[in-house]
Amino acid sequence: MIRALLAATAALALSAPALADTLVDNVDGLTIDATGGVERFTGLLIGDDGRIVQVLHRGDKRPGKVDYFVDGQGQVMVPGMIDSHGHVMSLGFSALTLDLTDTKSLAEALAKVAAYAKVNPDRPWILGRGWNQELWPEKRFPTAAELDAVIGDRPVWLERVDGHAGWANSKALAAAGVTALTKAPAGGSIERLPGGKPAGVLVDNATELVAKAVPAPRPEDRDLALAKAQEILLARGVTAIADMGTTVEDWQSFRRAGDNGSLRVRIMAYAMGTDNMALIGGPGPSPWLYDDKLRLNGVKLYADGALGSRGASLKAPYSDAPTVKGLRVTGDTQLKNFMSRAALDRFQVAIHAIGDEANAAALTAIEDMNQTYTGDRRWRIEHAQVVDPADIPRFAKAGVIASMQPVHQTSDRLMAEARLGPNRLAGAYAWASLAASGARLAFGSDVPVELADPWAGFAAAISRTGPDGQPFGGWQPQERVSRELALAAYTSGGAYAGFAEGRFGRLQRGERADFLLIDRDPMLASPAEIRATQVMQVWVGGRPVHQHGN
Amino acid sequence: MIRALLAATAALALSAPALADTLVDNVDGLTIDATGGVERFTGLLIGDDGRIVQVLHRGDKRPGKVDYFVDGQGQVMVPGMIDSHGHVMSLGFSALTLDLTDTKSLAEALAKVAAYAKVNPDRPWILGRGWNQELWPEKRFPTAAELDAVIGDRPVWLERVDGHAGWANSKALAAAGVTALTKAPAGGSIERLPGGKPAGVLVDNATELVAKAVPAPRPEDRDLALAKAQEILLARGVTAIADMGTTVEDWQSFRRAGDNGSLRVRIMAYAMGTDNMALIGGPGPSPWLYDDKLRLNGVKLYADGALGSRGASLKAPYSDAPTVKGLRVTGDTQLKNFMSRAALDRFQVAIHAIGDEANAAALTAIEDMNQTYTGDRRWRIEHAQVVDPADIPRFAKAGVIASMQPVHQTSDRLMAEARLGPNRLAGAYAWASLAASGARLAFGSDVPVELADPWAGFAAAISRTGPDGQPFGGWQPQERVSRELALAAYTSGGAYAGFAEGRFGRLQRGERADFLLIDRDPMLASPAEIRATQVMQVWVGGRPVHQHGN
Repeated sequence: MIRALLAATAALALSAPALADTLVDNVDGLTIDATGGVERFTGLLIGDDGRIVQVLHRGDKRPGKVDYFVDGQGQVMVPGMIDSHGHVMSLGFSALTLDLTDTKSLAEALAKVAAYAKVNPDRPWILGRGWNQELWPEKRFPTAAELDAVIGDRPVWLERVDGHAGWANSKALAAAGVTALTKAPAGGSIERLPGGKPAGVLVDNATELVAKAVPAPRPEDRDLALAKAQEILLARGVTAIADMGTTVEDWQSFRRAGDNGSLRVRIMAYAMGTDNMALIGGPGPSPWLYDDKLRLNGVKLYADGALGSRGASLKAPYSDAPTVKGLRVTGDTQLKNFMSRAALDRFQVAIHAIGDEANAAALTAIEDMNQTYTGDRRWRIEHAQVVDPADIPRFAKAGVIASMQPVHQTSDRLMAEARLGPNRLAGAYAWASLAASGARLAFGSDVPVELADPWAGFAAAISRTGPDGQPFGGWQPQERVSRELALAAYTSGGAYAGFAEGRFGRLQRGERADFLLIDRDPMLASPAEIRATQVMQVWVGGRPVHQHGN
Repeated sequence: MIRALLAATAALALSAPALADTLVDNVDGLTIDATGGVERFTGLLIGDDGRIVQVLHRGDKRPGKVDYFVDGQGQVMVPGMIDSHGHVMSLGFSALTLDLTDTKSLAEALAKVAAYAKVNPDRPWILGRGWNQELWPEKRFPTAAELDAVIGDRPVWLERVDGHAGWANSKALAAAGVTALTKAPAGGSIERLPGGKPAGVLVDNATELVAKAVPAPRPEDRDLALAKAQEILLARGVTAIADMGTTVEDWQSFRRAGDNGSLRVRIMAYAMGTDNMALIGGPGPSPWLYDDKLRLNGVKLYADGALGSRGASLKAPYSDAPTVKGLRVTGDTQLKNFMSRAALDRFQVAIHAIGDEANAAALTAIEDMNQTYTGDRRWRIEHAQVVDPADIPRFAKAGVIASMQPVHQTSDRLMAEARLGPNRLAGAYAWASLAASGARLAFGSDVPVELADPWAGFAAAISRTGPDGQPFGGWQPQERVSRELALAAYTSGGAYAGFAEGRFGRLQRGERADFLLIDRDPMLASPAEIRATQVMQVWVGGRPVHQHGN
């Protein structure tokens, strides 16, 4: 029945942009309400513009007649999840790239390459990654000739699992101009056949020889990546995402999707740097486009690097590298110049800051900006991963949103312990402390660095444990947050962080009807159960856009 | 009454995008009909979507009741004029630049600069052009100090009337880093005070020292320029234009106007080269956006330069420079590569070709492309200014649209005679010969090189005379076209050249109601009278967007 409705509504949408009234009833609904608490309800009446007309509670009179009726069959209804930090196009591209990580032999890898090339006849290059000759019985580097035997018509370039080597076929070597006469660059090597001809694998800095010959993605590849990314996000229940680092090419792809009606996930874009910002937005943030599906909100800036590579800028040296304090990608003056440039035209500023020094610097810069650029600015610090406890109160005071990714905590905890030592963990992934200090939180995934899975994030947020349930009792468990706060950070908090409150993020009258039907109640289920949440149906703007198994 | 309707309809449009039915009656209407002839009618019924519901003839029954009724008071109604070759942003920028051409003294020029700066307090630089010290009693170059006395707070840069010198104030010299120590580049000179300090005026190649310090226009400047350009076009009765050489920045400005509802003139965009094309359009031409107000149709390419500067590529040497045959901006192979790149993704190709060699080369390239890229391609040659009579039949045979600018003939005729000599004039501005050969024509202005005035173009097209009525009987009068053909080339022909037939360009059922009410009948008035046409009202998409005197 639901499948029939999906088809009927889709057909309707194609023939007429205006939808008829829809009643989704008999649900176990929950949403963050206007006071920040959780409101329960049992039905949703949706108008022909895709906005919520009425939130119905048990005992409320139902309308006598509606055009479409959906029996929720007692399933749990929650607002569509908002991923407040992701990389939409990278997600799509990475999903479209051939994945060889699970191949158990050279023959299996070659068969996968051949099959992939066959179903992608229009791709000018075949790109892949993830092979590891140590997992193959051969235990030797593969060759260009072996690849040529399966694909001779176009270049193939396959990165090794660690990114430190690449395997090319002859077409790729030729396109890159790598011959017997090519010398390997410093810090790299070219595997060679007897006689000096390149054998096919290039190592470390030599990989760049081929990588730079790979053509930039074509617009049609970008559009395909966007479609794929949307599919993946919707399957997880993500109906809106903050795209962190939008290039003008990304934006054009978003607009093409908006123009032709294939934009299904709402995108709040933060341009990659001020040049993209000015080119995309012009004199200020774009309007909300395509019925609140797309807006350029502002700009993404970088204060520092990442913890794993010791690029995060720390106040004191790394515990596991006593001479290293990390890197500031953007210095104080330059950061403030970029922020002024953006704030002058009322672009929202989102600053990547991982280390405690970078977070302090971002806060200082924001405090400075606040003296000039008053009003509702919603400065964002992205990650806010390691914060000096002394700096935590500065977030709320300066009106800074902490945009954090709960899964990073579970993925990174052992690495973080090594990098920071035992005495700097109090301000690491300090969700509860930030919330208690009055800072607003928005949760996200950093997809494709992590999976775009809000359920894994929700479970991590309330438990500080990973998918294995470890560590027992949770890592730095005082930083767990309540289920209500986790739900808010994935819905209303994400909307607020993107200037979208009142448009989506809550199930309340007047907002877009973006919701999920899921098979369990995140307010009651155990963390392990929450991780296993099945998203049964996804609706965006009052239209079903995804259902489980499709 | 019309003013009241304008206000009422504008208010209506703000509150509701859907318009009610409108009847414009009692007009002396004319349009190109489906057969290419002229159809007369007396009223137009417009639906709430801005499209024509019915073309009413004398004696046809009028609808009993409409929401809005406009009495045309017997005025002449014609379709909105389509300018098939213009430069929208350049038009706007040039109109916004301070114009000093009519200043009669240094004091007057300074007063104009000061007044302009006062009404443009947000412009970071004051830019102007057109001064000529020979027209001033002073008869000497002006100085930076004189400019400083009126504007000391920001840089000022004013080009001389011929573009061969520029006048800077001290702020501009400082911004450009021009000091007593600066050496003039080869081919340029810096006027100096005793002691060597730059005096303010820089000549020829030295102007580049300051010009390159002028910041790129800000997005808000671009939006202002677009608004200004639309105002100028609408005042002349131009409701649609082919923008030849759209950059991504231009496109973003067009989209901003579309997004915020301020796009009033329809723009058919041809990207400046294939890089802009791919960035703007992605995998192919954009859809028609904003109710047919904007589309990226294709790409503008350049085969050669211009006749005046002897950059047009001729088969035989210039008559007034026997060693010069002109310049090919893009060689044959590169031209074909660009064309393939565009045609592969079904972008339309518009090739600038002025000289007979360039036109022949463009035709050859198109003939080659036709073997691979079949279907409805609508190749365009822009200007087609000097064509070897032997090549004229190749236009129709290869399906090439001749996109020509009638006013160029009247402006250029003496220069063209000098450049080409008496024996090459038969194929110059050969509108009638091209039409007789079966080629489709589209007329435009090349604004801002010429005024965006379709009436001057119409008069030139039917008379081969200039505004002074010269030469008597017309220059190469055998190339005059009929009034019907001129009207078609400014309306239905322009629509066809931009893949817009059926959308606008004719006043017929189902097309957008884009029309003008004018004060005389171009099918009856003399050329001089046609030049003096007053555009009383302009409607685009069934809405009044301009009226005379406003």
